[in-house]
Amino acid sequence: MVCFQIEFSMLAVFAGLVNQPPNFIFKGHSMKKFINTVDNLLDESARGFALAHADIVRLNPEPRYIARTAPRAPGKVALVSGGGSGHEPLHIGFVGLGMLDAACPGQVFTSPTPDQMLAAAQATESGGGVLFIVKNYAGDVMNFEIAAEMLDCPHETVLVHDDVSIPEHQGMGRRGVAGTTIVEKIVGAAAEAGADLAACKALGERVVRATASMGVALTSCTVPAVGKPTFGIADNEIEMGVGIHGEKGRKRMALASASEIVEHLTQAIDDELKPAKGQPALLHVNGFGATPLMELYLVYDLTRQFWDRRGVSIVRSLVGNFTTSLDMAGCSVTLTLLDDEMIRLWDAPVHTAALRWGC
Amino acid sequence: MVCFQIEFSMLAVFAGLVNQPPNFIFKGHSMKKFINTVDNLLDESARGFALAHADIVRLNPEPRYIARTAPRAPGKVALVSGGGSGHEPLHIGFVGLGMLDAACPGQVFTSPTPDQMLAAAQATESGGGVLFIVKNYAGDVMNFEIAAEMLDCPHETVLVHDDVSIPEHQGMGRRGVAGTTIVEKIVGAAAEAGADLAACKALGERVVRATASMGVALTSCTVPAVGKPTFGIADNEIEMGVGIHGEKGRKRMALASASEIVEHLTQAIDDELKPAKGQPALLHVNGFGATPLMELYLVYDLTRQFWDRRGVSIVRSLVGNFTTSLDMAGCSVTLTLLDDEMIRLWDAPVHTAALRWGC
Repeated sequence: MVCFQIEFSMLAVFAGLVNQPPNFIFKGHSMKKFINTVDNLLDESARGFALAHADIVRLNPEPRYIARTAPRAPGKVALVSGGGSGHEPLHIGFVGLGMLDAACPGQVFTSPTPDQMLAAAQATESGGGVLFIVKNYAGDVMNFEIAAEMLDCPHETVLVHDDVSIPEHQGMGRRGVAGTTIVEKIVGAAAEAGADLAACKALGERVVRATASMGVALTSCTVPAVGKPTFGIADNEIEMGVGIHGEKGRKRMALASASEIVEHLTQAIDDELKPAKGQPALLHVNGFGATPLMELYLVYDLTRQFWDRRGVSIVRSLVGNFTTSLDMAGCSVTLTLLDDEMIRLWDAPVHTAALRWGC
Repeated sequence: MVCFQIEFSMLAVFAGLVNQPPNFIFKGHSMKKFINTVDNLLDESARGFALAHADIVRLNPEPRYIARTAPRAPGKVALVSGGGSGHEPLHIGFVGLGMLDAACPGQVFTSPTPDQMLAAAQATESGGGVLFIVKNYAGDVMNFEIAAEMLDCPHETVLVHDDVSIPEHQGMGRRGVAGTTIVEKIVGAAAEAGADLAACKALGERVVRATASMGVALTSCTVPAVGKPTFGIADNEIEMGVGIHGEKGRKRMALASASEIVEHLTQAIDDELKPAKGQPALLHVNGFGATPLMELYLVYDLTRQFWDRRGVSIVRSLVGNFTTSLDMAGCSVTLTLLDDEMIRLWDAPVHTAALRWGC
């Protein structure tokens, strides 16, 4: 079996550094993390997650996946997602009633392997087939494809590619970022309500088409296996359009006021979606991990003013750290144009570690 | 009226720096934040918060407080808290059904003023009197006392002082930190269920006695009005027992493995509470703002092992960023020894921006 474990090309250069001695954190690196060894980080963290949320999830240690404990109606479509760790709560924090049936965490910023995806799908399939929700990264896409080929039941895939910072037809195309949360919530509710596999896939693709995101980094993140920041950035610079692994954005810019920064994000999204006056929408301001909530609400206020001025009706909101990039300071803005069905599904009960309402 | 606006003594030295010119962020400071001007930060952020959660809260701009929109039963005790901003979601994120009736946000790390507290209490009092929940800082304590003196209805105060890093009878005594969330949730549920003022106060003090916390900083935070880190700390150092404004802890230590760091935190808490074998408890691992969730769950795993070995029964858990210190990397551990009533009240429905279940 050929497995693609590298989620984005930058990580290839780090590959040789993964097996550091256990005491690497004391060797004068600037990395300061709560960690014992890089090799055990995911084991210990996933075990803690499953223990803290034992009422919602269970951990299958090998191959590693997190599955919901809530019973499933026979014939319910099983929703399975996954990706590199370091973006928590995405995806494991979205496993539970009304959202994902299972999530497969890879090592930090590294795709999970097909055996994880296959095992998660087989464990949660309940007669309705399996829908994979996959963020658009080379490793994730290929490994989910390999798993799908080995899966002996009906299955479909929804590819999330909401990052408007890069052109649609460049390279691998657009990256899947914070819009993934919206897709997983809305399709999760539909699956819970009995929608069949084709309907779930069509709905997922409709949400993807209606969703656009863009992010900005104030600082880099630090991958534990590397021990130093992924990219250099000066004290007076920001990375506009950054990816959730620290991938290059649209441009390196001078640090600016929040209003100026937000204008770039919102204008790019508005240019993409072109919402009509009166269009209902969901506005999601997502922190990358190290940005205080106080600043995220300030960004929300500014984004809200932008679309209020254009007559877009923000009827649902989500503010907080949902699709993170380890310890990166920065945030992203996501807009999803909603229809009545999507609003109803967004409001439907959900019981996961990171999103919970109605139950 | 004498108002004490300084929440902790270190801020006194910053007082002259608050009125920076609007473009101070471009003057070569290392501070990188989503901000327009320091003077408008709280206005813009509070407005964003109220807009994002308009189904749960409303903002009174002057004097500034956040109040719940959910109707109150006549005679319900009104719970009012508050403190300096920069700890979000505490306290504004805990306003709503089953928790606080109102919260008064001060400027960053600066006590709110008595007129805010008085207005919040008067607006939410419903015939059952007012219970103030106050973290033990000089400015907060004095300003809540002034507000209480001016309040023309029955009122009581619960003082939260759960930080075991400092001795109980030193100076102002112990600081109120992440245990505040537990107090506000449990007393909030009791008030919602009709407990009277004396019962709410007694319950709050019981929870405070049953609760102990200790934190550790890997990095400093940066107060926007100051524009540089609150304290210096080397790449190979940590601050054990740090306060939530960056106050000095028990000792400056060398960076260590997560297991060693957690052992310090858990041992200090265990020494304080001395839980019996079989004692049910709530374990809260709280991030200070810039620590990835992946690391917080690893810390949870280690703390859980510590008390599992001692036969303490962790029956409820809370992991995430709840009592933050702006952009500080670090975390705290809180243990609350539970009785049946406290478990029932913890599980009761809550509908706030930051905690939501059962509705």
